[in-house]
Amino acid sequence: MSEPTIADVGEFALIDVVRERLGTNEYVLIGPGDDAAHVATADGTYVTATDILVEGRHFRRDWSSAADIGRKAVAANLSDINAMGGVATALVVAFAAPGSLPVSWVTDLIGGMVEECAKVGAHIVGGDMSAAEQIIISITAMGDAERPVTRSGAKVGDQVAYAGTLGLASAGYGALSRGFRSPKVAVDEHRSPHPPYAAGPAAATAGATAMIDISDGLLGDLGHVARASGVAIDVDPTAFEVLDAVQTVAGALGGVDPLRFVLSGGDDYALAATFPAGTTLPDGWTRIGEVKAGEGVTVAGAPYEGGPGHRHWT
Amino acid sequence: MSEPTIADVGEFALIDVVRERLGTNEYVLIGPGDDAAHVATADGTYVTATDILVEGRHFRRDWSSAADIGRKAVAANLSDINAMGGVATALVVAFAAPGSLPVSWVTDLIGGMVEECAKVGAHIVGGDMSAAEQIIISITAMGDAERPVTRSGAKVGDQVAYAGTLGLASAGYGALSRGFRSPKVAVDEHRSPHPPYAAGPAAATAGATAMIDISDGLLGDLGHVARASGVAIDVDPTAFEVLDAVQTVAGALGGVDPLRFVLSGGDDYALAATFPAGTTLPDGWTRIGEVKAGEGVTVAGAPYEGGPGHRHWT
Repeated sequence: MSEPTIADVGEFALIDVVRERLGTNEYVLIGPGDDAAHVATADGTYVTATDILVEGRHFRRDWSSAADIGRKAVAANLSDINAMGGVATALVVAFAAPGSLPVSWVTDLIGGMVEECAKVGAHIVGGDMSAAEQIIISITAMGDAERPVTRSGAKVGDQVAYAGTLGLASAGYGALSRGFRSPKVAVDEHRSPHPPYAAGPAAATAGATAMIDISDGLLGDLGHVARASGVAIDVDPTAFEVLDAVQTVAGALGGVDPLRFVLSGGDDYALAATFPAGTTLPDGWTRIGEVKAGEGVTVAGAPYEGGPGHRHWT
Repeated sequence: MSEPTIADVGEFALIDVVRERLGTNEYVLIGPGDDAAHVATADGTYVTATDILVEGRHFRRDWSSAADIGRKAVAANLSDINAMGGVATALVVAFAAPGSLPVSWVTDLIGGMVEECAKVGAHIVGGDMSAAEQIIISITAMGDAERPVTRSGAKVGDQVAYAGTLGLASAGYGALSRGFRSPKVAVDEHRSPHPPYAAGPAAATAGATAMIDISDGLLGDLGHVARASGVAIDVDPTAFEVLDAVQTVAGALGGVDPLRFVLSGGDDYALAATFPAGTTLPDGWTRIGEVKAGEGVTVAGAPYEGGPGHRHWT
């Protein structure tokens, strides 16, 4: 019998295996396993998160412009800081690509990155470059968070809420996958999402008990919160506004339930959070469910059959 | 005529093009262009640097064990923090690989990373994973530096010194490239270098005016210091101890000058720094030259013809 490969065990099991090997020290206030880590310095603290994007898996040059890809790569990182209730201030960018790539593609990529950074006032402070067979973009964001919000603080009875857009980017992906270039609003959101950057810090200030950004799909990511917090979460499927563009794509794909994009689609970089019962939700947040005793995520009290979120190596 | 590619312009010109696009803010105390950036938080500061390693370019699985590659990947990052006079405390690791990679390779890689981190008391606080055609390891290190030392502070009359090992790793590379597995001390140094982690903070405390880690080769990296500081640097070729293993490889390669490995070899992650004349050099530092008026780097007053350091896309 041959040795197990990383494709055999999958991303999440591999992360668990890796995590067992890591120690900790007095600098690590929040370590691996959340949207971002919280680290002490000699004189303060910061939050930090990293993301790696691979051509053909996270973006396609025939679907997205270099500027779109730059915006999205940065958005993915800023979103992790957002999900801790933080504001990113500095990014480092590692970039690898085949030598045949036009210089203008790289400058457009950086232009998109700088544009997205400007939305929160962050700056690129360093980087590294190498040759590689595929384009690889690996970004680390660092920022300030007064009260970092983890995935593990949800309590039974808490309200569940989301901020941002749900389903639009994955509807756009669905359209692009089948060769369509419309609806434009959905395709554009897939190419270059609009994370709700004000919503993360606002939720932290309002007393959010747990928070996560939605990259594996709402139900998948609420599953991470439920597991980390030791609770169950029930989602009310009537609480969502399903955007016209999402309904259009669902119809064009032949009777797909549009709610599937909302509940299982990633890539919008929306936020989900839990708040104590009775908390007035901050601007931009919509109540969509409740924290219960138990485990797992249900929709109107029942398991959802719409399929899992994104997986690598499968 | 077709558009210029990144291979056409090369790494350093591409970095310049990119740098022009980046702005700055009040958080950026030292921005792109040094070994690490120095960034303010709401309540303090940290230094940070990133490196991307690509299989086939920065490491080979048939030459190095997974643990060696993990140690070296972390060493490259810790060395950047060392070169600012800082001590790394936290790292994030982005990793991409083909699904066929054995799980045990990844756990051994992480084991090597953790081992190297332990040399300075740093910890891995987060990460990301993806599928990719090649193995890609992208690490960002963060740390504390009381008095960050840049590349740009060298003054005419300063002493030039180095700490660590010079030439051993590139002699090891030379041996491996020709199918040898010895001398073991050189081959091992290429597989898993030993940066002088105490020397960076000691140099900062002693008043170093400029510092850099040696990844492009001593002369190439002193060239970065000379350019950034607006000075010339002259190196005394008799000041170096040329290790036996380096002489052995030089002999086996048929009359190569062993000094070539010392002056032009990278990958040892040694440090070079400048100190005011009269400063007593800290432990581990050896005087190798002097800062002069003018520009460029010379060896005993003359240009060195031993070839340039490492370049991507060429």
